[in-house]
Amino acid sequence: MSGAGSQLRDPPASVVPLLDELRRFMDERVKPLERAVLSQPFVESLPLLRPLREEAKRRGLWAPQMPKAWGGQGLSMLEHGFVSEVLGAVPFAHWVLNCQAPDAGNMEILLHFGTPAQQERFLRPLVEGAVRSCFSMTEPDRPGSNPTWLETRARRDGSGWVIDGTKWFTSSADGAAFAVVMAVTDEDAPPHRRASMLLVPMDTPGVRLVRNISVMGHAGSDWPSHAELAYEGVRVPADAVLGEVGAGFAIAQERLGPGRIHHCMRWLGVCARAYELHVERAATRPFAPFVPLGALQMVQEQIALSRIEIHAARLMVLDAAHRIDAVGQKEARDEIAMIKVFVARTMQAVLDRAVQAHGALGVTDDLPLAAFFRHERAARIYDGPDEVHLAALARRALKAHGVKVP
Amino acid sequence: MSGAGSQLRDPPASVVPLLDELRRFMDERVKPLERAVLSQPFVESLPLLRPLREEAKRRGLWAPQMPKAWGGQGLSMLEHGFVSEVLGAVPFAHWVLNCQAPDAGNMEILLHFGTPAQQERFLRPLVEGAVRSCFSMTEPDRPGSNPTWLETRARRDGSGWVIDGTKWFTSSADGAAFAVVMAVTDEDAPPHRRASMLLVPMDTPGVRLVRNISVMGHAGSDWPSHAELAYEGVRVPADAVLGEVGAGFAIAQERLGPGRIHHCMRWLGVCARAYELHVERAATRPFAPFVPLGALQMVQEQIALSRIEIHAARLMVLDAAHRIDAVGQKEARDEIAMIKVFVARTMQAVLDRAVQAHGALGVTDDLPLAAFFRHERAARIYDGPDEVHLAALARRALKAHGVKVP
Amino acid sequence: MSGAGSQLRDPPASVVPLLDELRRFMDERVKPLERAVLSQPFVESLPLLRPLREEAKRRGLWAPQMPKAWGGQGLSMLEHGFVSEVLGAVPFAHWVLNCQAPDAGNMEILLHFGTPAQQERFLRPLVEGAVRSCFSMTEPDRPGSNPTWLETRARRDGSGWVIDGTKWFTSSADGAAFAVVMAVTDEDAPPHRRASMLLVPMDTPGVRLVRNISVMGHAGSDWPSHAELAYEGVRVPADAVLGEVGAGFAIAQERLGPGRIHHCMRWLGVCARAYELHVERAATRPFAPFVPLGALQMVQEQIALSRIEIHAARLMVLDAAHRIDAVGQKEARDEIAMIKVFVARTMQAVLDRAVQAHGALGVTDDLPLAAFFRHERAARIYDGPDEVHLAALARRALKAHGVKVP
Amino acid sequence: MSGAGSQLRDPPASVVPLLDELRRFMDERVKPLERAVLSQPFVESLPLLRPLREEAKRRGLWAPQMPKAWGGQGLSMLEHGFVSEVLGAVPFAHWVLNCQAPDAGNMEILLHFGTPAQQERFLRPLVEGAVRSCFSMTEPDRPGSNPTWLETRARRDGSGWVIDGTKWFTSSADGAAFAVVMAVTDEDAPPHRRASMLLVPMDTPGVRLVRNISVMGHAGSDWPSHAELAYEGVRVPADAVLGEVGAGFAIAQERLGPGRIHHCMRWLGVCARAYELHVERAATRPFAPFVPLGALQMVQEQIALSRIEIHAARLMVLDAAHRIDAVGQKEARDEIAMIKVFVARTMQAVLDRAVQAHGALGVTDDLPLAAFFRHERAARIYDGPDEVHLAALARRALKAHGVKVP
Repeated sequence: MSGAGSQLRDPPASVVPLLDELRRFMDERVKPLERAVLSQPFVESLPLLRPLREEAKRRGLWAPQMPKAWGGQGLSMLEHGFVSEVLGAVPFAHWVLNCQAPDAGNMEILLHFGTPAQQERFLRPLVEGAVRSCFSMTEPDRPGSNPTWLETRARRDGSGWVIDGTKWFTSSADGAAFAVVMAVTDEDAPPHRRASMLLVPMDTPGVRLVRNISVMGHAGSDWPSHAELAYEGVRVPADAVLGEVGAGFAIAQERLGPGRIHHCMRWLGVCARAYELHVERAATRPFAPFVPLGALQMVQEQIALSRIEIHAARLMVLDAAHRIDAVGQKEARDEIAMIKVFVARTMQAVLDRAVQAHGALGVTDDLPLAAFFRHERAARIYDGPDEVHLAALARRALKAHGVKVP
Repeated sequence: MSGAGSQLRDPPASVVPLLDELRRFMDERVKPLERAVLSQPFVESLPLLRPLREEAKRRGLWAPQMPKAWGGQGLSMLEHGFVSEVLGAVPFAHWVLNCQAPDAGNMEILLHFGTPAQQERFLRPLVEGAVRSCFSMTEPDRPGSNPTWLETRARRDGSGWVIDGTKWFTSSADGAAFAVVMAVTDEDAPPHRRASMLLVPMDTPGVRLVRNISVMGHAGSDWPSHAELAYEGVRVPADAVLGEVGAGFAIAQERLGPGRIHHCMRWLGVCARAYELHVERAATRPFAPFVPLGALQMVQEQIALSRIEIHAARLMVLDAAHRIDAVGQKEARDEIAMIKVFVARTMQAVLDRAVQAHGALGVTDDLPLAAFFRHERAARIYDGPDEVHLAALARRALKAHGVKVP
Repeated sequence: MSGAGSQLRDPPASVVPLLDELRRFMDERVKPLERAVLSQPFVESLPLLRPLREEAKRRGLWAPQMPKAWGGQGLSMLEHGFVSEVLGAVPFAHWVLNCQAPDAGNMEILLHFGTPAQQERFLRPLVEGAVRSCFSMTEPDRPGSNPTWLETRARRDGSGWVIDGTKWFTSSADGAAFAVVMAVTDEDAPPHRRASMLLVPMDTPGVRLVRNISVMGHAGSDWPSHAELAYEGVRVPADAVLGEVGAGFAIAQERLGPGRIHHCMRWLGVCARAYELHVERAATRPFAPFVPLGALQMVQEQIALSRIEIHAARLMVLDAAHRIDAVGQKEARDEIAMIKVFVARTMQAVLDRAVQAHGALGVTDDLPLAAFFRHERAARIYDGPDEVHLAALARRALKAHGVKVP
Repeated sequence: MSGAGSQLRDPPASVVPLLDELRRFMDERVKPLERAVLSQPFVESLPLLRPLREEAKRRGLWAPQMPKAWGGQGLSMLEHGFVSEVLGAVPFAHWVLNCQAPDAGNMEILLHFGTPAQQERFLRPLVEGAVRSCFSMTEPDRPGSNPTWLETRARRDGSGWVIDGTKWFTSSADGAAFAVVMAVTDEDAPPHRRASMLLVPMDTPGVRLVRNISVMGHAGSDWPSHAELAYEGVRVPADAVLGEVGAGFAIAQERLGPGRIHHCMRWLGVCARAYELHVERAATRPFAPFVPLGALQMVQEQIALSRIEIHAARLMVLDAAHRIDAVGQKEARDEIAMIKVFVARTMQAVLDRAVQAHGALGVTDDLPLAAFFRHERAARIYDGPDEVHLAALARRALKAHGVKVP
């Protein structure tokens, strides 16, 4: 072995100073705002939070996942993994660094598939944090896990396109400057060539935000929100198409792989935070005079199980990140599928245990656990439910044995 | 065997007409209001809901758990189990029949331990639905699972008492007419004789509602709320004591046993509702053209597991109810402990599966699943966390082998 | 409710004296032989065990599941459930009472579908315990869970039939007097009418016991054994067919329902035994000087979980038995499927926990736990693997919603 | 990152040629003997297997974990991890390379704590494969998980010692040349200084092999066996003590850390083998004409879960090995505790799933699955049961928060 740096779990030396600076920033500036931000609509916290974005730029933390040429920090997937774990401990910290979903994914596809003109118009302000965006693929009447089966249509009209359809769970549409819309452009093409992606400014006539869907008790606003959108005769020019016509599915796949691992990296931070609260509770809460909760073996067992599962999850995520860096996300699709399932399940279990150890306090909003508990339930659903990834893993294993199953 | 009526899972003939009438009432009057009630603060729904209470009285459904002499239906625990299962499908249906927590428990202890004067003053309006009440035992700095270790004190003052202390998770305090307060009246008594229960009108000077605690994202209001209460020099007369001085723990135990099974019975209704939605989703949602979700074996597996666990939970609850009717709640404490753990866990699993099968829809508030999912997480905590019941079950099993463990 | 006797978990009064007598018989005569019988090949224990069978007859315990007219005790399914639970605690106790698989199932189908002549020839000596039998359906190259897809053929030859094929897991073939063989008699019939059942004396030319298959480390002998059998041009007369030609599948189903619940009833006994050992270990084994293992909360938790799951399993089995008695096994197929899955899984978990609590002793053959652990692993496979029952339950639930899925 | 070699899951370049050679050796020489070796007492297979040991030496594979100076391959813990994973697929392959328990552990402590004279007499023939040894610590009446509480005594007698006591689960004592015996040498010392380790030739008068304990159906013989041993007035000289008098506990800990990870590394091989059989079964077994078992989603799910858990287990084991190499086993005790629990549980689940997918075939001895299933159940017990490691992990986490719990 070549030395300490080769141990997967430790950050590469290249990113250590940035991580140190990030931890300071989190402790000094971000965490102190957590309670306030979580207790009011996000839109009302923007005056509090915008200065942090400027500070993140000054501190050299901005847009860690983007190339330096675009004003980011140019981190590899593995390096970003360590950053994202730190950020994940606070629900809005990714937003502060401008590496939050869905914008991070949109930046990525604009970077890879956008024309220079598209990049100047859409990517530039996005990277700079001047605007937000959304990704409009999922439809209420179609399974989100099947991106080859969509109802939204973009039909040719002169040199441009006219889009009609209904989308939902278009996260962060409220207040976004533009949407990346997935629509069928050729119904007669083979399934994986039917759809295209189109760049649609939200103020285009015919784009209508029907509602912010109430999720787990709140409709949300601005960035943390999930819109139902109607596209009614929305007319866009020919150059609204991102990449080639018919490349919608391919670009979606290209976006989803890194998107999934980005979520997993963030979830590591959620897990770490919950575990920290869990242990602290066990150490400090008496269950009888002078006896801490942590003296009870059933409490110990829950702590230990979380410790083990988080350790497993972390190694798997870092391994997947390393593999994406080394061979690309397509070759790493098994690793991505494995962490999508495992880390989401681990997070749910870790949160559940931390809530339980806190008793009544665990379900209150005095701690961030309850918010994590209810909002991260969706982790096992978005970007492909567990079932889809499990089936895909097995099918690829069988294929390696020469058997193709549906 | 003596006939079909002896099959545990079928309701006794005595209660069949009432159940038929109840189902009609639920379908015609209660369920149609669900969406509206769940989408606004409860206090704003009261004008909608109060007429239902009058109708429940007219239809002979009111206060099913209370004796006929008090205006109730005089059901046994087993009979009430079938009623409660039907009610549990809709979050506020117990309230409509006036058998909701915490009032049902307070009615019970007032009925068993109250003097005639206390009953006239506190129980009468409670049974009639003229007022609501709350039960003020849990404290923020003491483990709720240890009712022998409290900080709140009631000290003698002339012929009366003066109460000082802080309580939280006093559910439904907001808008209640009175509280049943558990306070230490003799610090030097043996642990199980230290505390007493006192009847305290909420408008007594010194009673202060500090806040409705935000739980899973909402502070709530009126009945569905959980208060932090300060008792600051609260003076009550000698006859405010319920039962004997020093009987607080004993009455709490008397209240908790039936209280726990009441929750379990309600949870059966939650499970039934979630399962019904789960199967309907699998039957009607296509995952590909003309192929329902239910054709997927992983979906089938989840349905079947919920079916099995609900069946087990239901038989256990009905068995425990039968046993309470036959030998009393003290002799049935193992059965109660078993269902408290098993049914709460089953409910959590059943809700989790139903959410998963609904995909994104499952976490929205378009269905009641998300509300059940976040609010019923507390089921494994209140009235004794799982860990307490598991340990108690084992300790009693060991005691039967002659071994006493702490 | 009509009284204490109607509580599902208590045996009906009709069977209480028999149960008392049975418990005495088990304690006095059966259990004392357990260690000896389990430590040598079964065939060598026969001289020890045969006198117990005579005694069981004298004590009025013989063949509890058979009608009195045939020399049995004429118990209902529910009554037999309580008997079987007691027997299940000792691995060979069912054999002692002549209600062991596969003979009990064969008795049942001979009783229901046999001609008087077939009954005299095959059933009479079987009920009397003069001979043993086997049931020859599963084939090595065909999924046992799909009884419509068999390779063994019985073709017409004059007035009789000639059977050719290979079977395996024909339990107890070693030493059996006859086999009930399932073979395709009409390949062109609809799937459920293709096969018939044939009564084949084991000494018929062409019947060859290829081997007793080594299962979990032992090939076994006599009754506890699983044979691979070759049927090579086996000629049987026309009246060898049980029931109608083409009725093989229907009779198999008729046999499987009660067969499954018989297993479940036995497993309750296995669970009870393992739980008893588990608690005893926790009560008596010190983990430190003067501190029993049971003082550890992690040990308590395992005991409590087993207690709860066994209670659930027991109520479900008794409920299913009651339902079979009331409406027949076809109408009770959901209940049977539920217990087949739930009780087998519960047993595996209960055994696993008991083994763990015993430490090294748990995996030795000084206790029966290790034998139960390895042999009952098959419970989740035989008579339909879990997966088949789970899918069937879901499909029937979906069908009730008007959706038919494969 | 410094390159592909730094990815934790890939073997360091240093060991790649050895691994290639090892795989060839396994395929050509070891695997072909598996069926034969597993179907007869191990002692009868020795003539078949001894030549393989000579060949392993010739091929440069011998004793991979031992220093080159002692005739081994001098591998680091991480390098050995990759070797052990390959070996684990076949139950006796570690024996072929002379890195099997308990000899590997004994070699290690002799290497670190033995005097030159002890090494010449005991270690030399052990490394060369001329003799076998055993480790005699666990006692029937004392919890194996508490090595500070032993009954066996070694008392001073002139310049030597006299040992009296009973041990069990002294694996491989049958046929061993010597035992390393843990005995109390000073009852009045602090708990961790009470015991010493003594080197006792098995032919010393007073050493008596009471029995090979029957485990999961077989008493075993020679290497795969677990003895109960009586030490009755066993007299050994002063230089029989390994390390210092009173250092028994410390040496045991020194032995256990690497011993545990050695087991984990082997279990990875068991998992890999089971998974391979599982996928192959799903790919090749039809459940209906022309439809493989693997087309069923419930089967796919089981494959995918095993894949994920094995991946997690593997990364954790390699990480722990790396950490032992980097900072020593004491600093890596959390990592070792985590894998001891996680890998043993994973293996049990992976084997269980593979058995289930094979149906009846899975419980037969036609495949190695059933042998793995029953023998590896002990993995969650030996070298500290799960419960001990879970509690230790939690206690250390709490200690880091300044809280010491028992």
